[in-house]
Amino acid sequence: MRAIVIERPGGPEVLRLVERPDPAAAAGEVRVRVHGSGVNRADLLQRMGRYPAPPGWPPDVPGLEYAGVVDAVGDRVDPGWVGRRVMGIVGGGGYAEALVTPASTVVPVPDGLSLVDAAAVPEAFMTAYDAAVLQMDLSAGETLLVHAVGSGVGTAAVQIARALGARTIGTSRTPEKLRRAEALGLEHAVHARDASGWAERVRDVTEGRGVDVILDLVGGPYLEGNQAVLAPGGRHVVVGVTGGRTATIDLRALMARRATLRGTVLRARPTAEKAALAEAFARTVVPWLADGRVRPVVERTFAPEEAARAHRLMEANRTFGKLVIVWP
Amino acid sequence: MRAIVIERPGGPEVLRLVERPDPAAAAGEVRVRVHGSGVNRADLLQRMGRYPAPPGWPPDVPGLEYAGVVDAVGDRVDPGWVGRRVMGIVGGGGYAEALVTPASTVVPVPDGLSLVDAAAVPEAFMTAYDAAVLQMDLSAGETLLVHAVGSGVGTAAVQIARALGARTIGTSRTPEKLRRAEALGLEHAVHARDASGWAERVRDVTEGRGVDVILDLVGGPYLEGNQAVLAPGGRHVVVGVTGGRTATIDLRALMARRATLRGTVLRARPTAEKAALAEAFARTVVPWLADGRVRPVVERTFAPEEAARAHRLMEANRTFGKLVIVWP
Repeated sequence: MRAIVIERPGGPEVLRLVERPDPAAAAGEVRVRVHGSGVNRADLLQRMGRYPAPPGWPPDVPGLEYAGVVDAVGDRVDPGWVGRRVMGIVGGGGYAEALVTPASTVVPVPDGLSLVDAAAVPEAFMTAYDAAVLQMDLSAGETLLVHAVGSGVGTAAVQIARALGARTIGTSRTPEKLRRAEALGLEHAVHARDASGWAERVRDVTEGRGVDVILDLVGGPYLEGNQAVLAPGGRHVVVGVTGGRTATIDLRALMARRATLRGTVLRARPTAEKAALAEAFARTVVPWLADGRVRPVVERTFAPEEAARAHRLMEANRTFGKLVIVWP
Repeated sequence: MRAIVIERPGGPEVLRLVERPDPAAAAGEVRVRVHGSGVNRADLLQRMGRYPAPPGWPPDVPGLEYAGVVDAVGDRVDPGWVGRRVMGIVGGGGYAEALVTPASTVVPVPDGLSLVDAAAVPEAFMTAYDAAVLQMDLSAGETLLVHAVGSGVGTAAVQIARALGARTIGTSRTPEKLRRAEALGLEHAVHARDASGWAERVRDVTEGRGVDVILDLVGGPYLEGNQAVLAPGGRHVVVGVTGGRTATIDLRALMARRATLRGTVLRARPTAEKAALAEAFARTVVPWLADGRVRPVVERTFAPEEAARAHRLMEANRTFGKLVIVWP
């Protein structure tokens, strides 16, 4: 198989397309012939040496999600898996023509969805669904605020919230991304010109009440604003800190609002937790993907030789939705 | 009835014992002839004009908890309540010989517990139980870290955790308070000499793993240490900010640990939520109070004329457990 490896920590130029032996499926695992590998911001960090793969995953092949077709199974796995179209998250090794992963963490790809589009689903939709719905209990009639609404997670969150019957407010620093998010169903688009001006707009839009759930990919610089716009009993979940990792928090305000702040990541979870998420996701969100109520947004696809270009484009912060590496 | 009122915002000297008409129980309420009124740190803030009573409660009579005997009921309340020994939390008006409160929020006092001791129960034990167990899901085998372990909430939390089968670590700046907390069942006493030294001790005591739940009455100055000692999936709940309200938070560390930070208060909750807490508390903790597995710690009692002295003693930060005003 071919795989994209990190030769040494560094810029996009350290990504190299190489030949590797096909991995073998161990007990409980399936082997997937990969058709699409989603690109994530975390891959950039890993490439720079700042986000190593957890134990048990390929250390030098980035990639946290895939879609493809099962072509082999290990012991204790139903051979009926072979030939099925699947997608999922992995701890690493996603940028390769083949990978092995626990069968329990695999999600079926519905018929109407291409494997290229499916490769844009797992990280964005599982992160948004897990963080906003499973963890923060976003419910019909509540209001969700999504920062960086033009990101893969942001575009997924808007659609999931809408499918649930929740209201949505999204911020972006780029007016063009806001327009595209509105086309996906975003109700209130707020242009974030600086670290705090958006908060006043969010309070206006909610008539002073504030928001029930915040899905946050920005982190530090927005914390003060986030504390100001959270409604009583509000829940703020941080899934990314692209703007900065530290900020001043007002714990008295947290008490007065009885507010919750949680950080979350998918990558480091034990297999049993990833399996539980895959199961809930297959039950709830996959039917929405099947009937078109939610759909992944693929901005561009890249040949395996173009992985460095994909990383450069993501670093430029101008993408809306996802980038996918396609294995022809 | 007699009541202790705040004549104007200020020091302990603004508390005045006055005559007031007995309040009348409205529909859904009971009237309680009060025997003991617990003193809380929040009463000091209210006296200084910094923590006004929520709407619907006496604005000028402090006091968030009571124990006494029901002597009248309003419409739609079973007259069988009259004569029962009860305790509970109120939004204000606790420093009085009589008060009215929703019947749904009242908790029975078990036979073996005096009404003076019972007056030391509601705020401390309901806060600790609600925050650590109901909200943060402290479970058998987990480890609870309690800051300011010599406080009313702290001494309650240690005993509740022990009754649940959880391990306990407590910090205090006063070695004498730590010794007394050990007598209540605290397993690991950690002397907090400064804002951060205790964190290393907590990591040692947990063999580097960290703690599952933090019950925090200190706030700002300990946040960095709290982030350092929280185990993966750990939950940190802030019920007081006596050390300071703001601090720098590391959101990336929050993500990496998949940690939760929540603020909570009892006072501002709607009646339905207070009723749900009273019900859970009566079912779980009252039996422990009845069989002596947990017990309130009353440091000193005061006559109604001595309310100012009680406030001065609490301000001096040298009390272990609770102060109670007794109505003879």
